[in-house]
Amino acid sequence: MRSTQFKTLATICAGVVLSVVGCKPKNAGNAVSADAAAKAYVAPGKYDEFYNFVSGGFSGQMTAYGLPSGRLLRVIPVFSVDPEKGYGYSEETKPMLNTSHGFVPWDDLHHTELSQTNGEIDGRWIFGNANNTPRVARIDLKTFRTAEIIEIPNSAGNHSSPFITENTEYVVAGTRFSVPMDDANGDVPINTYKKNFKGSISFISVGKEGEMNLAFQIQTPGVNFDLSHSGKGPSSGWFFFSCYNTEQANTLLEVNASQKDKDFIMAVNWKKAEEYLKAGKGRKQSVKYAHNKYSDVTHSATSEIKTEVTVLDAKDLKDICYFIPCPKSPHGCDVDPSGQYIVGSGKLAALIPVFSFDKIQKAIAAKDFIGDYEGIPVIKYESALYGEVKKPGLGPLHTEFDGKGNAYTTFFVSSEVVKWNIKDLKVVDRAPTYYSVGHLTIPGGDTKKPNAKYLIAYNKITKDRYLPTGPELAQSAQLYDISGDKMQLILDFPTIGEPHYAQAVSADLIKNNSVKFFKIEENKNQYVARGESETKVVREGNKVHIYMTCIRSHWSPDNIEGIKAGDEVYFHVTNLEQDWDVPHGFAIKGANTAELLVMPGETQTLKWVAEKPGIFPFYCTDFCSALHQEMQGYLRVSPAGSNVPLLFSTGKNLPAADNAAAVKK
Amino acid sequence: MRSTQFKTLATICAGVVLSVVGCKPKNAGNAVSADAAAKAYVAPGKYDEFYNFVSGGFSGQMTAYGLPSGRLLRVIPVFSVDPEKGYGYSEETKPMLNTSHGFVPWDDLHHTELSQTNGEIDGRWIFGNANNTPRVARIDLKTFRTAEIIEIPNSAGNHSSPFITENTEYVVAGTRFSVPMDDANGDVPINTYKKNFKGSISFISVGKEGEMNLAFQIQTPGVNFDLSHSGKGPSSGWFFFSCYNTEQANTLLEVNASQKDKDFIMAVNWKKAEEYLKAGKGRKQSVKYAHNKYSDVTHSATSEIKTEVTVLDAKDLKDICYFIPCPKSPHGCDVDPSGQYIVGSGKLAALIPVFSFDKIQKAIAAKDFIGDYEGIPVIKYESALYGEVKKPGLGPLHTEFDGKGNAYTTFFVSSEVVKWNIKDLKVVDRAPTYYSVGHLTIPGGDTKKPNAKYLIAYNKITKDRYLPTGPELAQSAQLYDISGDKMQLILDFPTIGEPHYAQAVSADLIKNNSVKFFKIEENKNQYVARGESETKVVREGNKVHIYMTCIRSHWSPDNIEGIKAGDEVYFHVTNLEQDWDVPHGFAIKGANTAELLVMPGETQTLKWVAEKPGIFPFYCTDFCSALHQEMQGYLRVSPAGSNVPLLFSTGKNLPAADNAAAVKK
Repeated sequence: MRSTQFKTLATICAGVVLSVVGCKPKNAGNAVSADAAAKAYVAPGKYDEFYNFVSGGFSGQMTAYGLPSGRLLRVIPVFSVDPEKGYGYSEETKPMLNTSHGFVPWDDLHHTELSQTNGEIDGRWIFGNANNTPRVARIDLKTFRTAEIIEIPNSAGNHSSPFITENTEYVVAGTRFSVPMDDANGDVPINTYKKNFKGSISFISVGKEGEMNLAFQIQTPGVNFDLSHSGKGPSSGWFFFSCYNTEQANTLLEVNASQKDKDFIMAVNWKKAEEYLKAGKGRKQSVKYAHNKYSDVTHSATSEIKTEVTVLDAKDLKDICYFIPCPKSPHGCDVDPSGQYIVGSGKLAALIPVFSFDKIQKAIAAKDFIGDYEGIPVIKYESALYGEVKKPGLGPLHTEFDGKGNAYTTFFVSSEVVKWNIKDLKVVDRAPTYYSVGHLTIPGGDTKKPNAKYLIAYNKITKDRYLPTGPELAQSAQLYDISGDKMQLILDFPTIGEPHYAQAVSADLIKNNSVKFFKIEENKNQYVARGESETKVVREGNKVHIYMTCIRSHWSPDNIEGIKAGDEVYFHVTNLEQDWDVPHGFAIKGANTAELLVMPGETQTLKWVAEKPGIFPFYCTDFCSALHQEMQGYLRVSPAGSNVPLLFSTGKNLPAADNAAAVKK
Repeated sequence: MRSTQFKTLATICAGVVLSVVGCKPKNAGNAVSADAAAKAYVAPGKYDEFYNFVSGGFSGQMTAYGLPSGRLLRVIPVFSVDPEKGYGYSEETKPMLNTSHGFVPWDDLHHTELSQTNGEIDGRWIFGNANNTPRVARIDLKTFRTAEIIEIPNSAGNHSSPFITENTEYVVAGTRFSVPMDDANGDVPINTYKKNFKGSISFISVGKEGEMNLAFQIQTPGVNFDLSHSGKGPSSGWFFFSCYNTEQANTLLEVNASQKDKDFIMAVNWKKAEEYLKAGKGRKQSVKYAHNKYSDVTHSATSEIKTEVTVLDAKDLKDICYFIPCPKSPHGCDVDPSGQYIVGSGKLAALIPVFSFDKIQKAIAAKDFIGDYEGIPVIKYESALYGEVKKPGLGPLHTEFDGKGNAYTTFFVSSEVVKWNIKDLKVVDRAPTYYSVGHLTIPGGDTKKPNAKYLIAYNKITKDRYLPTGPELAQSAQLYDISGDKMQLILDFPTIGEPHYAQAVSADLIKNNSVKFFKIEENKNQYVARGESETKVVREGNKVHIYMTCIRSHWSPDNIEGIKAGDEVYFHVTNLEQDWDVPHGFAIKGANTAELLVMPGETQTLKWVAEKPGIFPFYCTDFCSALHQEMQGYLRVSPAGSNVPLLFSTGKNLPAADNAAAVKK
C-alpha cells in the first residue's frame, strides 16, 4: 500500500473510529441556555417566528417546521408518493412523478432553497432537488404544494442543486455521479470512466410566475460535483461548485477518491455562458426528460417529455469555467453575504480555505494558472486564496453566515459548530452537536441579508438523544440562539426523513399569502361538479365516470348501482365546501390505491377497478363534522355482462334493479 | 318534512353552524398554565416521560410522540406504503400489504391499543385497525415495527377495533358498514339493506408470542358498530360495542340514521361465545382473507390466504349478545377502571348515560327486556342505567378515566373536555379545546390503572392554531396537566395524518427493551451475505441476483457489468454494521420503486428492471460516515442478447469486457 493510500486510510480510520464511538464532543461547554425552556416555547394560540423548510433527504419530501418550537407543521409531498394525501395516486397528481424512466415513486431530496430577489428571500417559492433520478422541484408557498418538477438529462446524482442566483434567474443542477452523456453509447466498460464518463452542470431558468425551463447545460470533466452557491454583489454572474474525485475513480471511492491533497471549486461565469448561448454556441442534443406542472385552476398535473437540450462544452469555451484548488475532497461551497468570500469545506481537510473573488478575477485576468485539468484552467491556489482558518476542527462540511462578519462551519467528525471571523480568520466560539452535524442553517444565512437570531444544526447520528424507537431512529436537529456573542443551545427536535440542507424565513413573509381554500367557481378540472345538481354517473364502454360531490355530511350520489365487474371506475370528487379547513377524504373498500384528500373547492379523481360482484362501501376519511361518521355510501357491482341499470341517488332509495322503468336522479 | 326529521336537521344545523364558526369554546377559562413552558420542556439530552402512540388516521400509519415535549419520535409504517423506509416496496415488506383484494398501498388507522396483562399496559405490543379494507395490525414494541397484519372477512369499515381484553386474549374488530356476508350473493340492490346487509364482530385471539388468529365471528343485525371496549374486573368476559344506525338506513345517513332517540350499546358475552365455539356451534364459512407476518430473523414477510372462519349467529345463540338502549347515535363506549360502569357517548345526545354492569346482569337474569331487535334481546334502559350526567356539553364523543373516580369526556360540538365524577355524576371541571376535540387519552386511561398525570386532546379542526401551510393544515393535539383538581393546558402540538384514538405509557416500560441492531449471525434471510466474501452476482435466466453488502463506506460489489436490458435485477443488500444507529440506504437511478433502508444486520431486496443499455449509478442514501459521499457504485447494462460477461468487484477495475479470460471476483 502506498504511503498516500496509508495516509488516507489513517484519516478514514480516524473518522470511522470517531463516528463509531459516537463522537462525544470535546467541548461539552456551551451548556443549554438557562432560559431555554422559555425561549423554545410557543404558547397555545401563538405563532412561531420562523418557518423552517427542511429537506426530507431519503423521505423525498420537504417539511415545514416552526421555530423556535421545532414543531412539524406540514410534510410537503415532492418526489415521493404520499398515500395520506393521495399524492402520486390520484389521477391528477400521478403525472407529477412521471420521468423519462416512467413513474418513479420515490427520491432523495437533499437541499431546499427559497427564492430570492436582490439577494434576499422573497417568500414566493422554495426549490428542492432529487438526487437519484435527477430533477428539480418548485414548491408554491401560497399553497405549500409542489407546482412543478423538471427532470435533468445527461445527469446522475443531482446533488449540487437546487441553488439559485440572486434574483432567481436560474436554479442549478450538477452531477455527483459522472455518466456517459445521454446520446453517447452508454454500454461501455466502467473502467473507461476517464474517457467516457462526463459531468454536467445545468442552468434552469425561472420565469416570472416560476415556470422552469432547462436553459442550457455545461459539459465538464468527470468529477463529482457536491454543493454549489451563487455569487452575489461583486460576484454576481458567477456560480461556484465544489468538486471531489478529481482522481476520477470509479470504484472504492472511499480510498481512490481521497488520494489528492486538493480537489477543486469550479467557478462558472454563467453570464458568459448566456452570451455563448445567445451567439448560437453549444450543440443541440437530442434527449428525453420530463417536465411536469400542477395547476391550482384545473387541480391537475400535466407531464410533457422534452426532447432537446443545448450543451456548452467547458473545454471548448475556455472562459466559462475555472478550477480553484481546494483541500481536500471538498463538500460545502458557501459565499458570504458580501459576495466577496467563497468558503470551501474539505471533509478530509484540517483547515478552511477562504477564497477572495477579487483575487480570483485578478488571477484570471493575469492568467495565473498552474495548468489545466482536461482543458479547464486551474488557478494557482495562493493567488485565489484570501486566507485559511487554521485548526478549526475535524471534517468541515458547511458554512452559513450571520451578516455581522462571522461564519459558522459544521464539523462532522469533531461533532461541532465553529464560529469564526471572516476578516481575521480566527475562531471565536465552538458549540458541540449531538451528534455529528451535517448541514446547518441560519435564516437567510446564504443570502445577502442573514437574520441571525437562530442557528439550527441538522445532525447525522442520533443514538441516545431521544427515547429509543427500535433500530430506526429519527434524525435530530438542534436549535441555538446566536443573537449574542456565544452560541446558546435551546432545543433538540427530531426530524422526518433525513434532513440535509434547510432554510428558514420570517413567518411574516409567508403567512399572509397562504391560500385558505380554492374558489369553486374558478375550478376548471375536467370532471368538476360545481354543485349537487351537476353530479352524474356516465358510462363510456367499460369506463364509468362518477361525478361526485361532498359537503358536510354526505356524498352525492351515495348509492350507485349498475357497475360491472371489470369496469374502470373513476370517482371524480369535488369538495363543495367554501370555508377554511374543511377537507373531505374519499376511500372505497379494497381499492389498490390510496385515498383522495380533497380540499374545499378542489376536484380529485380516484381510479378503481371493480374487481368482482358485491357491495363496496365508500366513506369520508377526514373527520369533517359532527355527523362525519354518517358520511358513507354504497356501490353495487354486478357481474360482467349483467344488465343492472346504472342508477345513482342520495337520500332516496334506488328502485329495484329489475324495474325497467327505473328513473335516473 | 316530518317533525323528527326537522328536529334532526335542526340538531345537525346547529352542529354545522358551530363547526363553521370555528367553535370558539364558551369557557375560555383554564388559561395556559403559568409554568407551561417549563412543564412542556425536555432539555437536550433528557428523555420524555411517556411514549404517546398516536393513530395516523388517513395516513394509515402509527406515530410515536414523546410527552410532555410533543416531539415526533417515529412514524411507524403499518397500513400505508412508506417510500422513505422502503416499506411496501422492498421484496421483503411487500407481502405485509397483501390482502384478498391484492396489494393495497394505503388504509385509515383509527385506534391504537397497547397490550395488557391483568388489565394493565405491559409494553409488549400495540395494535392498530384498518378501517377501509378491514384488518388489524400488531406492532412489536422492541423494534417499533409492524410484525403482523390479519385481514377480516365479512367486514367493511372496521372501526370498533382494535380494542382488547384484559389479558390480551382477544383483539376485536367490528363493522361500521354492514354488507352482505362474503358467501352470500353480493349483487343485490342496495335498498335490500334491511334484508341482506349484516354486521359482524370478530374476535382475534392473540398467542403468547403475539401471533393473531381469527378465532370466531358473531353475525349481527345490520347496524353500524362504532367503538368498543372490554369489560374488566367484575365485567371480565364481556365486551361492549356502541352501535348507531339502528334505523338501518342505506342512504343519506346524516338524516336517516339520526331519527331514533336511542340506538344501542351491544354487550357481548364472549366467554359464552367461546363455550359455543368449543361445543361446535356456529357455521364454518368459506372465505378468503390474508394473514401476513414479518420475521426479524429472516427479515422477510410472508402472506398466507386463509380460507375459513367460524361464524356464530347472535340471533340463534340468544345469550351472547344483548342490546342496551343508548341515546343518541352513540360513538364512544368506555368502561371505567373498576369495570363496573359503562359510559355511552351519543354524539347527538345532550346527556351522558352511565350504565352499571351489576344492573345489566340483574336485568338479564330477570329477563327485563323491552323486546328484541332482530332476535337480540333489548334490555330496558332504566334497568341498565346507573344514572345520567345532565347537560355536560354538546356532542359527547369519548371518555377516559383518571383512576381517582373521575371521568373525562370530549365534546366535539361545544369544543371542550369535561371532567365529571362517576359516583355523583356531577361536572367538576371544563377545559376548552382548539378546536372541536375528537378523542382524548390519559396514559392507561382505558385500563384498570390509569396514570393520570396528563390528558391529551386530539382535535379535528385546526384553522388558526399554527402558522398556515396553505389549504392543508396539520391536526392539533393539546396536552393538559391533570395532576391537580383542575385541568391545566400546557402545550399545543401538531400531529401527522389525522389522529383518532391514541394511548400513552410510561417510557420505562418500553425503552430498555428497544432493539438497537440485528445480529448478523442470526440473519436467516434467503439472500443474506454475512461478509464481503459471500458477495456474488448470479444469473438465473433473465433474473440476476446481486448479493451485496454495505459497510462504512463502500458497497461490495460496487462495479457490476453483464446485466442486459430487460433483466430483472434483485439487489439483496446486507448491512454488515454491528453497531447502533448505522443504517445504510440503497437506490439506483431511474428505478420505478422506492429506496431500501437497511438497519445493521438486516438484509433487504430491491427489484429493478434494467430498462435500457447504459450506466446506472447506485449509492448510499443515508448519511452514514465521513466518507458517505464516496459510497457509490456503477452498474452497466448492455443490450439484450449481448455477451458482456457478468463481472463484479470492489476496489479494482473490472477487466475490459472483451477480454475472454476475464476473471470473476
